[in-house]
Amino acid sequence: MSDLQANASRPVVLTGDRPTGPLHLGHYVGSLRTRLLLQDTHQQNILVADTQAMTDNAHDPDKVRRNVLEVALDYLAVGIDPARTTICLQSALPALAELTLLYLNFVTVSRLERNPTIKDEIQARGFGRDIPAGFLCYPVAQAADITGFRATVVPVGEDQAPLIEQTNEIVRRLNRQTGIELLPEVEALIPTLGRLPGIDGKAKMSKSLGNAISLAASEDAIRAAVRQMYTDPNHLRASDPGTVEGNVVFTYLDAFDDDVAEVERLKAAYRAGGLGDMVVKRRLEEKLQAFVAPIRERRERLAADLGYVVGVLAEGTERARAVTQATLDAVRGALGTFSLDSVRALYAAARSDGTPGA
Amino acid sequence: MSDLQANASRPVVLTGDRPTGPLHLGHYVGSLRTRLLLQDTHQQNILVADTQAMTDNAHDPDKVRRNVLEVALDYLAVGIDPARTTICLQSALPALAELTLLYLNFVTVSRLERNPTIKDEIQARGFGRDIPAGFLCYPVAQAADITGFRATVVPVGEDQAPLIEQTNEIVRRLNRQTGIELLPEVEALIPTLGRLPGIDGKAKMSKSLGNAISLAASEDAIRAAVRQMYTDPNHLRASDPGTVEGNVVFTYLDAFDDDVAEVERLKAAYRAGGLGDMVVKRRLEEKLQAFVAPIRERRERLAADLGYVVGVLAEGTERARAVTQATLDAVRGALGTFSLDSVRALYAAARSDGTPGA
Repeated sequence: MSDLQANASRPVVLTGDRPTGPLHLGHYVGSLRTRLLLQDTHQQNILVADTQAMTDNAHDPDKVRRNVLEVALDYLAVGIDPARTTICLQSALPALAELTLLYLNFVTVSRLERNPTIKDEIQARGFGRDIPAGFLCYPVAQAADITGFRATVVPVGEDQAPLIEQTNEIVRRLNRQTGIELLPEVEALIPTLGRLPGIDGKAKMSKSLGNAISLAASEDAIRAAVRQMYTDPNHLRASDPGTVEGNVVFTYLDAFDDDVAEVERLKAAYRAGGLGDMVVKRRLEEKLQAFVAPIRERRERLAADLGYVVGVLAEGTERARAVTQATLDAVRGALGTFSLDSVRALYAAARSDGTPGA
Repeated sequence: MSDLQANASRPVVLTGDRPTGPLHLGHYVGSLRTRLLLQDTHQQNILVADTQAMTDNAHDPDKVRRNVLEVALDYLAVGIDPARTTICLQSALPALAELTLLYLNFVTVSRLERNPTIKDEIQARGFGRDIPAGFLCYPVAQAADITGFRATVVPVGEDQAPLIEQTNEIVRRLNRQTGIELLPEVEALIPTLGRLPGIDGKAKMSKSLGNAISLAASEDAIRAAVRQMYTDPNHLRASDPGTVEGNVVFTYLDAFDDDVAEVERLKAAYRAGGLGDMVVKRRLEEKLQAFVAPIRERRERLAADLGYVVGVLAEGTERARAVTQATLDAVRGALGTFSLDSVRALYAAARSDGTPGA
């Protein structure tokens, strides 16, 4: 734990994933890679967001439960280091639920309905008027998560900027009302590389779209995925000039091939004509096999020692419990309300004021 | 505590009050009187609903805090017996917050907006589109309260029937999804006498309307209240015939004068003409003074021993914590999701299934 103690002066960052399926290369490029770097510079907390996953999986809670350990395995397999990063389980942190309920009183329904992310996701999920109340409220739950950990940095995709805005509105409202710097404002850390497309060229890689390569993919699965990967549909013969932009194979090479000069040379050759898809795909497959193999092997070793994984989650959750409970206590204390402790304090104050006591 | 144990086989009832002001005669007639009777027949829990009070007092949390002990004092002063009734503090029961967040995933926003109580209260409070999200969601929080205590009976005013409906919808949804009798359905207990009007004749007695007589009212305050009490505005001379219906003095006599025959005689005389308001008011004042005096005196004694009151609240809250946490665990267990314990159980199951373990 000495590493965690050494981190104490660093800025606090909170990230997390909804445990609804194993993580894939899209998660790696979009966030896990950043988190590996943040371990050296920040006090990092990663939330396995099972409570949030329930906001649109209430009909299938078992899916959420089954994936809690899968996601934790993925973290450890890619190199998240529990000696430097706190990995914790959202549903085992009651202070976050209590902060959420409290914050809901400071946010109007119309404000929630105006949230662009919520608007988009309502449409994407086809909820219409039947949106679960929990789903509408989840940006407030995220504000509770972020402020519960006193995070000042949150890595988010560009489409998640409204989440930061909603959090800071709550922070400013509470700071204004209490007249102190009760909670810190938070900044978005927008990853430089952005997101990895699916193998079919769609903007989003997702297990449910069937266009993902999981972090634990077998050799065969990787081979098959690269084979069916979307390139340039007009590049019919190797001798034809081809397009690199939107060509998934090149996008993946940009992400997974460290030899930037060689990738640039291949791009030029492809554009000029004379370079076949198979050659580029063979190179990409090699790179992906080399990237995934050690992750897959570490994951298999860890999966054979689930006691260790559960232990990591339990220990991180204990630490997170202390932090989030302290925030809840501070918020209640500053608002001057709630809790049996505050009632006891009121009583003590009444007695020392000279009110006759027992 | 032996009384509480003896109660164990009785039906469970949950009631409560938002601590936003001291309780008054309206509370006594509308609910406290019923609660005194329920102590002999039910396993009674009374919730000091400070979390709910915040749904429309977020700007003034201090008002909520200050009134927590006031309300507890009122309970004890009217004769709620902590050896037979569990008095507890909502904000000190995190399982209720966790159940609320969980249930919000099973209720749609449009369902919440259709709730007639919410509709009325939005209008009454002038929220319009700026309704706090916590306020929209409070019927779900009430469902969490009711089911958290496994209550099967909830005394409610006629206007609160939608609360029971919303709770039972959630109960049925969870029972259907889990395939077991996870939570009991709840029945409304609608008090026979209904509510006491304000001294101005308005339907609702309320401190903020300035038409209330508090349970701790002084002799002078009672005298003044009866003096300004609304009677029959057309009953100008004692010799005129008067109207009893809607005449607050008679409504109060019905509630506080045990001599039913004498009250009927007075009503007849008033209707016939020849009975002055002052005579009836003098009788009512006598009855109210006799009713309030022992409550006020008990309240003063208890207020001089706040340690005892805090102790009652703390003890009741401890008991309630155990009950509500057990419900949360049962709900999560049946849904098959959440909690570090369930992750540990998953791990144990995986090992006994022959999955290689540590």
